[in-house]
Amino acid sequence: MHRTKVKVLEGVLDANDTIAQANRGDFDRANITVVNLMSSPGAGKTSLLEAVIGQLDGVRLGVLEGDVQGTQDAERIAGAHTPSGGHVPVAQINTDPGFGGECHLDANMVRSALPSLPLDQLDLLVIENVGNLVCPAEFRVGEDVRAMVFSVTEGEDKPFKYPLMFRAVELVLVNKIDLLPHLDFDLDEFLTNLDDVNPGVETIHTSAKTGEGVDAFRDWLATRARRSVAA
Amino acid sequence: MHRTKVKVLEGVLDANDTIAQANRGDFDRANITVVNLMSSPGAGKTSLLEAVIGQLDGVRLGVLEGDVQGTQDAERIAGAHTPSGGHVPVAQINTDPGFGGECHLDANMVRSALPSLPLDQLDLLVIENVGNLVCPAEFRVGEDVRAMVFSVTEGEDKPFKYPLMFRAVELVLVNKIDLLPHLDFDLDEFLTNLDDVNPGVETIHTSAKTGEGVDAFRDWLATRARRSVAA
Repeated sequence: MHRTKVKVLEGVLDANDTIAQANRGDFDRANITVVNLMSSPGAGKTSLLEAVIGQLDGVRLGVLEGDVQGTQDAERIAGAHTPSGGHVPVAQINTDPGFGGECHLDANMVRSALPSLPLDQLDLLVIENVGNLVCPAEFRVGEDVRAMVFSVTEGEDKPFKYPLMFRAVELVLVNKIDLLPHLDFDLDEFLTNLDDVNPGVETIHTSAKTGEGVDAFRDWLATRARRSVAA
Repeated sequence: MHRTKVKVLEGVLDANDTIAQANRGDFDRANITVVNLMSSPGAGKTSLLEAVIGQLDGVRLGVLEGDVQGTQDAERIAGAHTPSGGHVPVAQINTDPGFGGECHLDANMVRSALPSLPLDQLDLLVIENVGNLVCPAEFRVGEDVRAMVFSVTEGEDKPFKYPLMFRAVELVLVNKIDLLPHLDFDLDEFLTNLDDVNPGVETIHTSAKTGEGVDAFRDWLATRARRSVAA
């Protein structure tokens, strides 16, 4: 049974990549940079996005929210104010029509949501994936770059336990850094473990609560967006 | 494509249930209670098990560890001391032979690991599932009861975002409760959300760091194990 299952899932991944290429074509035509943002449940993706929206001047951002059920995150993003007092366009994908709820976004789900967003009027699209450290890393959705939020409450060993995720990304936001004094968490050990799995990967220490690192995350996003405009 | 995929996965679930029944038969013959313990990555399943092993007298416990890669958790469990100074038998399942790493244990993986454990000499088997709030709730493995560890660092909204998981369990360990003073986390709101999704579900507030609630978790496990012995 197990052997058959793996074969089926590889077929799914092939089909996914074909649709991801179609998404990629649409993003290129719209001249837009797309970030696939991943993490465990509750690591703080939405809170960081809310914080960065408040600082992201001169970059036209859109957000695509992925959740098994619910629209809480999309509502939070829609309610956040940009520096000029505006709002960012947001669309929600719910994965629950798949049996019991798909644990990741795939290229087809993203494709089905694209008509809900004004791509031609955006510089940057952040896709907030379903909270999960395994399967989201296996499904490309047509993004330019993959980033993840890691919460320091999750423990130093996670790069070794979920290596595909930590290896798939170009940026790790080391979040809830304000909690360090209250945790038995060895930041140096985590960074060493991370570097073992993904040598030289960029990291930013962040806290949506204190605002630490939000400016650096903003600059990272803005640089990515400008690269696309300049290209 | 999506429709086809869902059909395949339902077939997988049917096959899984057949194997789960076979596991169930083996557990019944060994007169053993089996707990399927689930959570997000880093919510604290292993730390709570380590703490409870130190207090679990008179119950012969075994542990089955599920991870994508690595044996860190199994080594931690194997190193924990029971009140009489002994150790508990532990086996490790790695799910990474599946494409990129399966995000959950299934009944067949558990079945393949059972010969590694002395079931006839145990009263209680705890299966620590892969850290993930979606798919582990969809795959029965032959367990008597499902429980989850929820970390208060994950936010109040999680029962609405991962309803299948919160609905599937008979016990929610509300963990890292020692961090409450340092978080913007409304415990009453979380408990209300949880009760909306799974009315009347039992909860225990726990902290592996301070030891809060570990005795209550021990009593819950011991009662489950004795029920099986008495039956």
